[in-house]
Amino acid sequence: MDSKQFRDAAVSSIDEIVNYFDTIAQRDVVSKVEPGYLRKILPSSAPEEGEDWATIQSDIETKIMPGITHWQHPSFHAFFPCASSYPGILGELYSAALSGACFNWICSPAVTELETVVLDWLAKMLGLPEVFLSTGPSRGGGVIQGSASEAVLTAMVAAREKYLRETVPEGLAEEEREDLVAKKRSRMVALGSGGAHSSTKKAAIILGVRFETIPVTAEDGYALSGRRLGEKLEELRGRGLEPFFLTVTLGTTDVCAVDDFRGVADVLESYRAQREGDGGGEVWVHVDAAYAGAALVCPEVQEQTDVKVVERFHSFDMNMHKWLLTNFDASCLFVRDRSWFVKALTINQAVYNNEASEGGLVTDYREWQIPLGRRFRSLKIWFVMRTYGVKGLQDYIRRGIRFGEEFAEMLRSRSGLFEILTGPSFALVVFRMVGKDEEEKNKLTKALCERINTSGKMWVTPTVLDGRFAIRFMTGVRTTEKKHVDAAFESIVKYAEEVHSA
Amino acid sequence: MDSKQFRDAAVSSIDEIVNYFDTIAQRDVVSKVEPGYLRKILPSSAPEEGEDWATIQSDIETKIMPGITHWQHPSFHAFFPCASSYPGILGELYSAALSGACFNWICSPAVTELETVVLDWLAKMLGLPEVFLSTGPSRGGGVIQGSASEAVLTAMVAAREKYLRETVPEGLAEEEREDLVAKKRSRMVALGSGGAHSSTKKAAIILGVRFETIPVTAEDGYALSGRRLGEKLEELRGRGLEPFFLTVTLGTTDVCAVDDFRGVADVLESYRAQREGDGGGEVWVHVDAAYAGAALVCPEVQEQTDVKVVERFHSFDMNMHKWLLTNFDASCLFVRDRSWFVKALTINQAVYNNEASEGGLVTDYREWQIPLGRRFRSLKIWFVMRTYGVKGLQDYIRRGIRFGEEFAEMLRSRSGLFEILTGPSFALVVFRMVGKDEEEKNKLTKALCERINTSGKMWVTPTVLDGRFAIRFMTGVRTTEKKHVDAAFESIVKYAEEVHSA
Repeated sequence: MDSKQFRDAAVSSIDEIVNYFDTIAQRDVVSKVEPGYLRKILPSSAPEEGEDWATIQSDIETKIMPGITHWQHPSFHAFFPCASSYPGILGELYSAALSGACFNWICSPAVTELETVVLDWLAKMLGLPEVFLSTGPSRGGGVIQGSASEAVLTAMVAAREKYLRETVPEGLAEEEREDLVAKKRSRMVALGSGGAHSSTKKAAIILGVRFETIPVTAEDGYALSGRRLGEKLEELRGRGLEPFFLTVTLGTTDVCAVDDFRGVADVLESYRAQREGDGGGEVWVHVDAAYAGAALVCPEVQEQTDVKVVERFHSFDMNMHKWLLTNFDASCLFVRDRSWFVKALTINQAVYNNEASEGGLVTDYREWQIPLGRRFRSLKIWFVMRTYGVKGLQDYIRRGIRFGEEFAEMLRSRSGLFEILTGPSFALVVFRMVGKDEEEKNKLTKALCERINTSGKMWVTPTVLDGRFAIRFMTGVRTTEKKHVDAAFESIVKYAEEVHSA
Repeated sequence: MDSKQFRDAAVSSIDEIVNYFDTIAQRDVVSKVEPGYLRKILPSSAPEEGEDWATIQSDIETKIMPGITHWQHPSFHAFFPCASSYPGILGELYSAALSGACFNWICSPAVTELETVVLDWLAKMLGLPEVFLSTGPSRGGGVIQGSASEAVLTAMVAAREKYLRETVPEGLAEEEREDLVAKKRSRMVALGSGGAHSSTKKAAIILGVRFETIPVTAEDGYALSGRRLGEKLEELRGRGLEPFFLTVTLGTTDVCAVDDFRGVADVLESYRAQREGDGGGEVWVHVDAAYAGAALVCPEVQEQTDVKVVERFHSFDMNMHKWLLTNFDASCLFVRDRSWFVKALTINQAVYNNEASEGGLVTDYREWQIPLGRRFRSLKIWFVMRTYGVKGLQDYIRRGIRFGEEFAEMLRSRSGLFEILTGPSFALVVFRMVGKDEEEKNKLTKALCERINTSGKMWVTPTVLDGRFAIRFMTGVRTTEKKHVDAAFESIVKYAEEVHSA
């Protein structure tokens, strides 16, 4: 494919993509193919000779599109959104052209430096405390990770090394030290609430440390309270275990609960004070704001969530690729002190040595992450922020939140059919059908959920809260307008009535 | 940005990208900016109001390009290549439009199924044994990871769980079991040769297990031999340690050495047989073919490297995004038995439950990797394979290898100036300047390397082999033609003569 052929192919692809977005509402949201559909219609080996673009391109609509679930569809109300926007796509396009492994500053200084700059922009937009800025007082800063799972893993590795540095005395003989470290590792516990995302548990598995869940209840709105944390810490110490890591959540996966940051911080402060006598060792607190962190672009949300308290925590992560119009992947991880990452993750190999890195003037982000190489992901963030502006991003978030409130209002207007379990919270409402008892409610709600999803016209995600089967309805997708929310509600009422009379 | 504005912006971006590639040779290879250049010329916060595309786009050439090191430049001879090709860019473009988190099959069946199909295509092209095919006899298969570092980490996590399953007896009381596991974890050792990439050590740090290096020597061409491995295993057992993981390399970072697969496999077979009495526990062997694995598309390379022996190993990884024309990121990881990944990495969370996954008919790749969400990365692989065809890919690899041989020939023709330390091997030659003793050779080679790299006209990477400073010269970039290699050699001779007479 030469330049001329590429230009033609790319322009034709752009036209297809524009048409895709212009007509996306006409497609079914969820793919209806059977497992194994694609293998049946593709050759079993790569072609020996190259094919022309027209042949390849025509297969996208005929072979790939039937197997696509449309996350940008206005009637996608499942999970959380996974963003794609026009400036985001342009960012990916330039990033693909400027491909490089970019593990060091010198491998493309712009890749590192734009990342530092736009993550400072983001920290300011979100109202994060100064400690998370690269220019802040504590040598903090941000780094783009591939996903919230990688972010929590990175934070947990750094937390473990930090905890061991703080609690293993210096000056031990090699063998004695190794024994102590081994013993500690086997006792160290990572914590998350019952509402925390499974990525914290997965990170603990990868590290080979224990993981414990702190229960949350409907009375607390499924948020972690300081009291519950305090009880768990006491229990763990009683069992001879050493808590070293806690994920608190701003917008849990199930119901978008926000943990009680201030209560958690206070409990950990007194826990730390109590333990100063016995060797110390701080519990690292990681804030998982993967989805709802986007809403912090609105000052009123910064206020409501008491976000300034995160100054007392260690790391903070949010995914621009969920609700902030930036293409997957763009998980933005901030740390209060970059040396925590660097101390845990630095590996020197001669082939990567270079003057700039040795001079200490530059950031080598490979020391802030699991992988070595990295894509130019800050470009799409830069394009999105500049195209929308802060006000444009705020408008977009407020619109999604408003749709959630309007949807909740509609549910309330049909209280003979529906009851709200949680929300509206960050454009998410969790509801179920009414019924004479729990069993009937579960049965009806399950039937409604199936009825909605088999329609193909919309997609919602079920969840289970304390044994109560429920439907999550999310209104944050870029293409969703008021008319889609209205139409969705109308259909849901119709399906609910069918389910009731079935 | 509406559809119409996007179309205009995208077409204009395509034109810029075409022009970038058409004129790339006129740019300096390596950026010459000073650390911190970008912060000085960008605002300190995101704009309040959105900006138009023309303003944003013009900043790419004026503010970003000066900070770019051009990995697609024909005179980029540093590290290994990091691919970008026209069909690869088209793949990224469509992938960006079809953005979704795609952690389950139902989240877009095509994303999962195309990945399975093209990785089978790839396994066949590379001559990998059937055990690594999704349709093979051992429930194996391939998965796309972000980088070789994530691949080795995933493999090591699976290996640790497998080893513990094999060596911790069933039926122990909870506490006894925990004690034994803790003791084992503290004794478990991951291994790599002195030529292995640092990612194995990094994975061991993340897991919190020991890492040991097996020395390699110039006499063995810096390849790991069975004998050296055998000695190390014996030493470790003597120290009461338990080796459970080994990375062998096809194309080491420094010199592109290929480890002795057959020798390694034989030693491990007898090691295993010896240990059957004492509880067993197999050493997982991960093949890191990140760069040179691409060359296996040529049958003669399959032959030379004895690749069929990898059937006796557990996992195999190669990066299409290095030398196989596919945009970063596309690290292709194959495993002999998918259940090893799934057993180590599965986490259930109610919100991800769905009928297709529960039916067991589909692959949920989130259980084969660290992150939860995933991009549609198979699309670019599909486009690249179909656009080039197997023959096109073979031609491209053979051309890079030939350039390396020709460059080595040129070095030999000037034996008064240069000596080759290793290669040509997989389009990589490692050479240095001649001199009266080691000290002078190092001094002259260092000076030459600096002289080459400060020219801006070409980029090479230095390395150090047993204290011998050397220059790596890689000829695998897509845009590199014979004339660039000739011109590079001419310049290198000129610089070498300057250095000599300085």
